[in-house]
Formats: sequence, C-alpha cells, structure tokens
Amino acid sequence: MKSSLSSRLSEVAELTGKALKEFLSRYRDEDFPVLWEAMDYATAEGGKRIRPFLVLEFCRMFGGNDAAALPFACAVEAVHSYSLVHDDLPCMDNDLIRRGKPSCHAKFGEAAALLCGDALLTAAFEIVASAPGLHAEARLEGVRILAECSGAAGMVGGQQLDLIGEKEKLSYERLLKMNMLKTGALIRASCLLGCVAAGAGEKERAAAGLFADRLGLAFQLTDDLLDYGTEDDKTTYLTYLSLDEARKMAKSLLDEAAAAVADFDKDGILREFCGYIANRDK
Amino acid sequence: MKSSLSSRLSEVAELTGKALKEFLSRYRDEDFPVLWEAMDYATAEGGKRIRPFLVLEFCRMFGGNDAAALPFACAVEAVHSYSLVHDDLPCMDNDLIRRGKPSCHAKFGEAAALLCGDALLTAAFEIVASAPGLHAEARLEGVRILAECSGAAGMVGGQQLDLIGEKEKLSYERLLKMNMLKTGALIRASCLLGCVAAGAGEKERAAAGLFADRLGLAFQLTDDLLDYGTEDDKTTYLTYLSLDEARKMAKSLLDEAAAAVADFDKDGILREFCGYIANRDK
Repeated sequence: MKSSLSSRLSEVAELTGKALKEFLSRYRDEDFPVLWEAMDYATAEGGKRIRPFLVLEFCRMFGGNDAAALPFACAVEAVHSYSLVHDDLPCMDNDLIRRGKPSCHAKFGEAAALLCGDALLTAAFEIVASAPGLHAEARLEGVRILAECSGAAGMVGGQQLDLIGEKEKLSYERLLKMNMLKTGALIRASCLLGCVAAGAGEKERAAAGLFADRLGLAFQLTDDLLDYGTEDDKTTYLTYLSLDEARKMAKSLLDEAAAAVADFDKDGILREFCGYIANRDK
Repeated sequence: MKSSLSSRLSEVAELTGKALKEFLSRYRDEDFPVLWEAMDYATAEGGKRIRPFLVLEFCRMFGGNDAAALPFACAVEAVHSYSLVHDDLPCMDNDLIRRGKPSCHAKFGEAAALLCGDALLTAAFEIVASAPGLHAEARLEGVRILAECSGAAGMVGGQQLDLIGEKEKLSYERLLKMNMLKTGALIRASCLLGCVAAGAGEKERAAAGLFADRLGLAFQLTDDLLDYGTEDDKTTYLTYLSLDEARKMAKSLLDEAAAAVADFDKDGILREFCGYIANRDK
C-alpha cells in the first residue's frame, strides 16, 4: 500500500499519537508514576489509528480542518485503548499479548491496568470537553456522542453480549447486534465526531451514519475471517456463514459504505479505505 | 439524628435514587440483561448519598433549585458507585461484601462487574452532558469538573497511590495527597457542581472549594478511625497520629469546613452536616 490513503493514515497516526501523548502527560505524577506509564503504554504507537483517521477524514471531507477534529480523534483513541486494556484483563479475554507486546496488565499488573483503563476513559471526556477551537454546543454534542456510543447502549453493551456469546450460541440477530455495538458503535462515534468538528449538516451526518454502520459490520466480518479457526468456541459470523459467503458479504457492505459517501468523497480516499479494510491483515 | 439535616438527607437520597434509576433504565436491554441489572444493583439504595447531598445543598445555598442540580447529583453518585464496584474487584480490595450485601462481582461475576463500572462511569458523563435546564457552558463545565476530579489527577490517581500504600509506607505528605485525591476529589466535584448548577460566582466557589478540601480530609480521617484495627497493613492517618490526635484533627478540619461557608449557610445545615460526619458510624 503506497497511496494517498497510506500517507494519510501515517499522518493521522503521527498527529494523534503526538497530541494524545501530550494531553496525557498532564497526568504524570511522581507520587504514582505507574498510572501515567500504563496510560502512555496503552496508547502508544502500534495500532493503526483507524478511528482517528475516520474522525479527521470526515471532518476534512465536510470542510473542517484537522486542528478542530484532533481532540475528538484523541478522545476516540483513548476510549478504544481503554477498551483493549479492560478486554485483555484475566476476567475478560485474559490476553497476555497485545500488538506483539505484553498487554497492559501483563506489564503493569491487574490493578494498575484496571485503573489505567478507568483513567483513559475519564480522560477521553476531559479531552472532548476541553477541545479548543470548537464552541460549547459542539463540544457538548461530542461528549454525548462519545458517551452514547461507548457506554451500556454501545460498546460496553456489545462487550457484555460478546461474553454471553462465549457461553451460549447467539442467534444471528443477536450476533449482528453484538457487532453493531461492540465494534460498530465506536466507528459510528468516530464518523459523527468528524461531522460535529466540521459543523456538518443533516444530510452529511446521515451519509456518515450509513457509512459507519456498513463499515462497522464489515470490519467485524473481516476480523472474524482473520481469526477463523482460532475462536471456535464463540459465536461469530462464521457460525452462520461460509468463508465465501462472509467474504462476499464484507465486500458488499464495504461497497455500500463507499457508495453512502460517494457524493462527498471527492478524492476517493474513503473508497480506498474500504478496499484497505477488505484486504487488511491483523 | 432527627433534624433538618436528617430529613434533607432522606429527601436527597430518595430524589437521587429515583432519578438515577430512571436515567439508567434506558440501558435495560433484553439481549444482555445482566449489564443493566448490575448497574441498577450497584447504584441502589444503601449508601448515604452524601455526595448528592453536597451537590444539592451547595446549589440550594447559592440560590439554585434541586431540579437544576439533580442530574449532577446523579452523575457524581454514578461515579462513586463505579469506583466502589471496581475497588471491590479481586485485583483491588477483593471485597465480597458491600453495605451488608454481596459486592457487585460477588453477585454478577467479575467480567460483568468490570463492565458495569465502565458503563456507570460513561453514563455519568452522558447524564451531565444531557442535563436539562442548564445552558451548554454550565453542562460543559460540569463535564470538565467531573472528569478532572474523578480521573488520573483525581480519584483514580488516589486509588493508585492507595495501592502503593499497601506495599510500602507512604510519607505523611503522600498520605495527605492520597486522601485528597481518593476521597477528597469527588467531594470537591460535588460541591463545585452544586455551584455550577446554581450559577454561583467566584467568591462562592472559593468558599465551596475550601469547605470541600477540609471535609475531604476529615472524611478520610473519620473513615480511618472507624476502620482502626482492621487495616494494619496499609498506611493510614493512624500510622502517623494517635487516636486522640486524629479525633482532634478531624474536629478541627470540620470546624474549618463549617467556617468556610458560614456566611452562606443561613440555616446551618452544612454545620450540622459537619457534626454528623464527625460522629458518623460506617
């Protein structure tokens, strides 16, 4: 991959990584250094920063600039990072490795990882509420979108449903809902926060919402395809679909996502992004 | 205790309990009922609702009404409840009993308790951001105060320092800081949120901040006195003070707290509250 998408993803990753690190540095405290160290570790380079990319791209596409969207991008990435830290804990997925490195609790211990996740989630709201360059209503709408999409009616609800799916077989409808919440909700938040940062109108937001819904489902589908054979004990799309059907469905969802924003995506970067999601590796 | 304080505490407990239960009911979902059940359980009657009392009293004292302050009171109680749920987890204090009943993870399992805490914290910000009857700037300031006081530079930082105090002896200065953060910060948030709900000015806020700082320290001191003999392995005030010194210090801090707001506390309810804190049981 060597393209406008490739360079934009790198640019966003660098912008967000730097801004988030700078914001979080306010929590550095020599009386309890481990907390900030864990927060910094959990948000450090390594992820693809796909959610910040969506925040910044939707903002740019609707006429806003990166500076306005950057705090929202940092907040979404902080929420994503906290969710991974808590997801890796022994009582959840019990993962000792994350992105090829020790997971947060493997490195800092369970208690510090728990608190690190709590602190990152809290920081996300502080970042949105303090975002410079946006008026109060926009920041407030940012808080509402982030809270709705990441809480019990969004990502956390999806995590709970995912846990249920490890113990009992979910119906196809519940599986769809699980994926819409667990993966889709924060992707939706990212696209909508980009709209808020740009001051986009109703028509633009509707397109962003449709794009996000299709992308969220496709994202989980391709994830399930990548994980095929490693998670036989839980309900996934591949409980219901053949590999071929799943690949076709992902392709069709990503085509729909690209079509939803085709009128606005003048340089085709979101279309290219959809292709990237279809063919990504872990 | 049978007084204006007593009836006001009951009134606030009922108001907050009802409003919080109603707000949280939006998260009820038959596809993953356990999450809402755990959230409802963790915030149900049982606590004294001291923080909501402070939110509502400071608002009332500075000319606001209960309705304006109630969402802030619910949010602070949601944050307090989440902190107890996470504090009780096996990797933290490993408490199976909370307020005479099974703790959240003892009842619902560790994973559900972890997610319940995450969801309550997130809900707190949704509640503040959606507070009816307050203009955008006030709600936004509410989000900022709540995030600052409950995150890594506030309550969560104090919890981390508390964990360190179980493994090594804290200096007296670090112990003070631990208590200011772990217990004091959310009390500070409560008093300040009451000010924001009332649209109080700088002089009023300064008095509220001073009251909160003194009360926060006294609250932890009286807590340590109540726990005396049960927590010999961690650093507390009683590592540094005799029982008599600790009692005198609590009394003097509470006198200072009452004095800080004496000009505004026309009916003496906050002075009475300080006396109640000095003599409370668990």
